[in-house]
Amino acid sequence: MSLGTIHGVGLGPGAPDLLSVRADRLVRDARHVAYFRKAGRSGQARRIAEGMLRPDAIELPMEYPVTTEIPVSDPRYNACLSAFYAECTARLLALSRAGEDVVVLCEGDPFFYGSFMHLHSRLSGQVPVAVVPGITGMAGAWNATGQPITWGDDVLTIAMATLPEAELVRRIRDTDALVVMKIGRNLCKLRRAVTAAGREAEAWLVEHAAMPEQRVTPLAEATSVTPYFSILLIHGRGRRP
Amino acid sequence: MSLGTIHGVGLGPGAPDLLSVRADRLVRDARHVAYFRKAGRSGQARRIAEGMLRPDAIELPMEYPVTTEIPVSDPRYNACLSAFYAECTARLLALSRAGEDVVVLCEGDPFFYGSFMHLHSRLSGQVPVAVVPGITGMAGAWNATGQPITWGDDVLTIAMATLPEAELVRRIRDTDALVVMKIGRNLCKLRRAVTAAGREAEAWLVEHAAMPEQRVTPLAEATSVTPYFSILLIHGRGRRP
Ligand SMILES: C[S@@+](CC[C@H](N)C(=O)[O-])C[C@H]1O[C@@H](n2cnc3c(N)ncnc32)[C@H](O)[C@@H]1O
Ligand SMILES: C[S@@+](CC[C@H](N)C(=O)[O-])C[C@H]1O[C@@H](n2cnc3c(N)ncnc32)[C@H](O)[C@@H]1O
Repeated sequence: MSLGTIHGVGLGPGAPDLLSVRADRLVRDARHVAYFRKAGRSGQARRIAEGMLRPDAIELPMEYPVTTEIPVSDPRYNACLSAFYAECTARLLALSRAGEDVVVLCEGDPFFYGSFMHLHSRLSGQVPVAVVPGITGMAGAWNATGQPITWGDDVLTIAMATLPEAELVRRIRDTDALVVMKIGRNLCKLRRAVTAAGREAEAWLVEHAAMPEQRVTPLAEATSVTPYFSILLIHGRGRRP
Repeated sequence: MSLGTIHGVGLGPGAPDLLSVRADRLVRDARHVAYFRKAGRSGQARRIAEGMLRPDAIELPMEYPVTTEIPVSDPRYNACLSAFYAECTARLLALSRAGEDVVVLCEGDPFFYGSFMHLHSRLSGQVPVAVVPGITGMAGAWNATGQPITWGDDVLTIAMATLPEAELVRRIRDTDALVVMKIGRNLCKLRRAVTAAGREAEAWLVEHAAMPEQRVTPLAEATSVTPYFSILLIHGRGRRP
């Protein structure tokens, strides 16, 4: 029997018509559909695909054992996640070996800070794996602001709000355009860093880009709480003939 | 009569099934289709849309008066491009005021170092303008390498090869993951910069990502010529449980 293919499929930032034509076809045709989610939540990727799955699609939710409960620096964090990814890999391997294709739903682009990468690295070389790129969450975010992110020779820095505060300050000072992701409970630290870098007046917070709840706020007017699906942007001001 | 809408439509990196569902519909339904190109060339955006346009679509090629002939530092460069964008804007305004919608074809994502931004800033506030985000060329490029670009807390720096060499060295040294665009005739300078930063062994050159001529080469093995549609990548090596 021939092996099934595991497809890591980028779904884009949120709107159902921002999937690529290739992703749209794969999702609508899939018999096995896997996705990550936090226990008790529906999962962002699964939400984007709502209404698109075949009525007889078999769903494989993969529930994170931890996300924010154990600090990232604790060795148990890595051990726990690693065991989880190994288990997910085993489930996908079994399906592939039974000849079944599987579509793994991924928010944005799978190879850009995505969870699917942890399955991709474990599956590669064992069974066929294919990846469909997607529109990133940040492209959805700058689109939501109605302004280009970069012009001419602008340097764009992409950083995670989980970095140490001093490192954030240094990065925010030393770039033309900026994208910060994974904000959530790091919002206060991030705001202090943006202010210390002298750029608070240029910064925008975009929550749930390309989703019905989309919200665009100048950072100066943002409240102290922001959801996981939030991105901070500073637009570049490069050459514009 | 109501005004027509000017749509800046991201077409993605090159493959015809990597347009978003929204972009695909707009392109296939468009009666007026505009795009930039160099005189005598077919234009990359137009090439991506090959085979998709209505038989009765009216095409509006917008031909750059200069691109590389005048140095960017020469004041005539800006003046010349500025007059060109004003003229393109006038053509699109006239169509919108005649009640016609226009689709402007854009490679990748329109708001990410795209030429459409120069029309967008001139049209905004005068007639309705809508932008459809797209999969960027760089997402096509890292997809072509088969490896994720960023993991965990990696910092990703995006820079243009048109920057001064010393600035490139500094940026390449001080980042986890790297994307360099607009390479073309700057390849020798860029290669010296990557080597000076001690990262030649990690660097990949991706030409024509997601197109039939796609080529992925370790920078160390690349020849001294590369097309305009080339991207240099260094993958991040962040946390991987
Ligand atoms: C694990 S990363 C996944 C990124 C995804 N692979 C992509 O290409 O955008 C999760 C982070 O992406 C950002 N993100 C993704 N989609 C978003 C959206 N539609 N709106 C706001 N933020 C988003 C948030 O910062 C979130 O913390
Ligand atoms: C003016 S910028 C336009 C970028 C585009 N808006 C995007 O989102 O990718 C042109 C540069 O994009 C890069 N590029 C865009 N698409 C590409 C592709 N499919 N393969 C390689 N490089 C590409 C090249 O570095 C090129 O010099």
